[in-house]
Amino acid sequence: MTKSNPGRFFEDFRVGETIRHATPRTVTAADTSLNIALTGGRYALFCADPVAQAAGFTRAPIDPLLVFHIVFGKTVPDISLNAVANLGYAEGRFLVPVYPGDTLSAQSDVIGLKQNSSGKTGVVTVRTRGVNQRNETVLTYVRWVMVNKRELSAPAPAPVNPHLADFVSPNDLVLPAGLDFSGYDFALAGSPHAFEDYAIGERIDHVDGMTLEEAEHQLATRLYQNTAKVHFDNLAQQGTRFGKRLVYGGVAISLARALAFNGLGNAALMLAINAGRHVNPLFAHDTLYAWSQVLDTADLGAAGALRLRLVALKNQNAHAFTDRAEGGDYAEHVVLDFDYWAAIPKRG
Amino acid sequence: MTKSNPGRFFEDFRVGETIRHATPRTVTAADTSLNIALTGGRYALFCADPVAQAAGFTRAPIDPLLVFHIVFGKTVPDISLNAVANLGYAEGRFLVPVYPGDTLSAQSDVIGLKQNSSGKTGVVTVRTRGVNQRNETVLTYVRWVMVNKRELSAPAPAPVNPHLADFVSPNDLVLPAGLDFSGYDFALAGSPHAFEDYAIGERIDHVDGMTLEEAEHQLATRLYQNTAKVHFDNLAQQGTRFGKRLVYGGVAISLARALAFNGLGNAALMLAINAGRHVNPLFAHDTLYAWSQVLDTADLGAAGALRLRLVALKNQNAHAFTDRAEGGDYAEHVVLDFDYWAAIPKRG
Amino acid sequence: MTKSNPGRFFEDFRVGETIRHATPRTVTAADTSLNIALTGGRYALFCADPVAQAAGFTRAPIDPLLVFHIVFGKTVPDISLNAVANLGYAEGRFLVPVYPGDTLSAQSDVIGLKQNSSGKTGVVTVRTRGVNQRNETVLTYVRWVMVNKRELSAPAPAPVNPHLADFVSPNDLVLPAGLDFSGYDFALAGSPHAFEDYAIGERIDHVDGMTLEEAEHQLATRLYQNTAKVHFDNLAQQGTRFGKRLVYGGVAISLARALAFNGLGNAALMLAINAGRHVNPLFAHDTLYAWSQVLDTADLGAAGALRLRLVALKNQNAHAFTDRAEGGDYAEHVVLDFDYWAAIPKRG
Repeated sequence: MTKSNPGRFFEDFRVGETIRHATPRTVTAADTSLNIALTGGRYALFCADPVAQAAGFTRAPIDPLLVFHIVFGKTVPDISLNAVANLGYAEGRFLVPVYPGDTLSAQSDVIGLKQNSSGKTGVVTVRTRGVNQRNETVLTYVRWVMVNKRELSAPAPAPVNPHLADFVSPNDLVLPAGLDFSGYDFALAGSPHAFEDYAIGERIDHVDGMTLEEAEHQLATRLYQNTAKVHFDNLAQQGTRFGKRLVYGGVAISLARALAFNGLGNAALMLAINAGRHVNPLFAHDTLYAWSQVLDTADLGAAGALRLRLVALKNQNAHAFTDRAEGGDYAEHVVLDFDYWAAIPKRG
Repeated sequence: MTKSNPGRFFEDFRVGETIRHATPRTVTAADTSLNIALTGGRYALFCADPVAQAAGFTRAPIDPLLVFHIVFGKTVPDISLNAVANLGYAEGRFLVPVYPGDTLSAQSDVIGLKQNSSGKTGVVTVRTRGVNQRNETVLTYVRWVMVNKRELSAPAPAPVNPHLADFVSPNDLVLPAGLDFSGYDFALAGSPHAFEDYAIGERIDHVDGMTLEEAEHQLATRLYQNTAKVHFDNLAQQGTRFGKRLVYGGVAISLARALAFNGLGNAALMLAINAGRHVNPLFAHDTLYAWSQVLDTADLGAAGALRLRLVALKNQNAHAFTDRAEGGDYAEHVVLDFDYWAAIPKRG
Repeated sequence: MTKSNPGRFFEDFRVGETIRHATPRTVTAADTSLNIALTGGRYALFCADPVAQAAGFTRAPIDPLLVFHIVFGKTVPDISLNAVANLGYAEGRFLVPVYPGDTLSAQSDVIGLKQNSSGKTGVVTVRTRGVNQRNETVLTYVRWVMVNKRELSAPAPAPVNPHLADFVSPNDLVLPAGLDFSGYDFALAGSPHAFEDYAIGERIDHVDGMTLEEAEHQLATRLYQNTAKVHFDNLAQQGTRFGKRLVYGGVAISLARALAFNGLGNAALMLAINAGRHVNPLFAHDTLYAWSQVLDTADLGAAGALRLRLVALKNQNAHAFTDRAEGGDYAEHVVLDFDYWAAIPKRG
């Protein structure tokens, strides 16, 4: 018997159970500073109290993506310690702003189970909620992962395939209470482009590139208290097909979103995660580039919303908007295909 | 004459003198976030205000090991700038919790001096106190180092060998005032194991590994304002027997303690440092693993206490509980042998 | 048409125009902790509230150099995105202390333009102001950069060469309101040397060295929200004459100033930047050393002021006070020649 956590295997999950995750975390302005140092983020809403207050916030909220990574990190010891692959996200919605001083904790409902035909692994689908100290759900999302079985002989559970929306409907997007962009200062935000300036189908090359170091992704992933060993244990990784540490997918999302400031500087506020796939592995020393495409738009009254596809590339700039290779598979340079909604001020 | 600090040499110390160290430091929640980013620490008491408040703290205190490193860092310019080796610790006790906003300063009494037979070096023993802005001693510990002589001809002082306890007696352990584990939430802490579950002699493999980068140990050591040049000046190190930067021993302690969360998740609160030796040097790119052994237990009323031996290994996992090699010396993979007391909730 | 920022080219600047920069930033105690972790800074005034309060500050202010880097970072997208070289600084003055919670923003007046004889580039001179949330100017400085032309055929503007002072006159130095060094504790600050102890012409070898990693300079430069791609995009840099990322010059200044603590421990408070040149490029893995020379002294009443020349060297210690090579050019090891005023307590 061991007191260290072996993690759950596929046969340990039951549809309908709720897993309460450990390690509540009081987030502070320090997490914002570290997030800036780790990503280079420049969205004014998250780094300047007066800008946030002018838009109806109490003060600068924590970047929703940072909230997502922290909540996600809490689920790792229970959900994905024995995961083979992180397969996808859906139905992610940011519901309440998180401020410095708030304490985040998380719980997950198991909503899907399906053993793979190999009999060695299965797909586990969970709906996770991040809650604050007032027990308000600040974030909810669905994630599915491929998890190893402990015993190949364990019987396959009755397959449950949850129905998941292809994307979050604009009707389900929640703007922060009191959001007011009427006095929004486009110059101070660093971009002149308002909601009305973006056209469905439009693609934006974010131009800049960012080379990633081992220390950087490890610092970020530890800040999220995500302890999946593939990101940290280089010795153990030497026995794997990659032979080295894998960068946590959330690091790629945050870096790509920071790069996307250059072209989407006013689309700071992520409202929903529609879908997301980590298409190819990202490693230290890779240089990340990104491009975006406007998939849809919605007028939410107090703000516009853009449905954006964010594609991150490694070691190839985004000038050519690289996407699929011949044959339809993702090109080898593509590491992330991420679909989300973000609020953006209207020209008014 | 130079205005830069040459550091003290062996003949500059006098038994009985008190050295007041420079660089008081106001610690903040930022130090907690950085500590999490640098170590991956997950002890809930140090990262969630509500968890700490439920246990009788004002808010999440600063991790005692971080307090130790910061206090230790202040002593370096006065004690160990010309040290050859950091030989050991004893009689370390954490007496008062340190909170964000507190200001730490430090002073040391020289309690032992003994010239080595070579005539080139001597052992200096100091008892250091870390104090807060109310002049309360928050931490005290003894440390001894081997220090170079400036002039080989300087006369040897009368040897003074302080008597030091092999370990801190349970009677001398101090629980934080008002500590109350009666409502402790084991699930939220991430481990079901209470005081009663640990048996003397029991060993725990902490399983996880952490590969360390140059940037990481440098950031940590600078955060502690520990400026010993062996950790930072790679050019000067090229002329030494190791040929590269040495990782500050405190980084190994903190990383090993963070790894130890996996098996000791409720033993967050370090109460005492009984002994500690940095057995082999740790370098960047090494992967650290750790195992623990329960050396003793004590019921302190409001909490239990475990006396734990924490052994950190480099580049070899801890499954075999590696310790001594044949012949009785430490195996070459062992970097740290650390003996401490930690409080842990009772099942109640 | 693209929505990403192409940056201004030489022909886009007009003498007399004011450019309002984006990305206001609320600085916090976290920036101080990160600054300590990134530089190893030990000036007590910036890391201990009680020390700062004893000297008349509200609490520990943000290190003026960190303020400078943050303000500078805001100007990059507007001024130097297409810069070939950062040529110099002048007339820098720190006017109001910046505290945690203050929000910094920046604007620049174009005060000089001169096309180079090649017709491909020109020199742009701007006077930048950093302002806080009360619209007080906390910092002002002049900087000139060589910027590419977009179109070689664009006509050369009428050359305007602003007259700039060789150095800030002591009469123009501004001590923080209420500065009071009467109770200054030299021991706690870590250096016994007061204003009266420094002689004009005196040189100080700061002894210590610091080896810099890619992750470290990238973290620092992102913390400043300085996004100049030469510091981050290793792939794009492979096509340049250096073939790798360049370290932002501000990182060299801050590291050299942190090293200068050893010999100038009481000269924490930078009052003015007289001049500064980044003489040779600094790269990751270089080891930085520094020496200082006292150029002048001034008695400001409540404090003394030292005019200091700070020279940073790479991969060569500062024992020989390396400076110019034969022929008068800077030696290849010199990376920085920086001229500033700092306040220092008088012996009283």
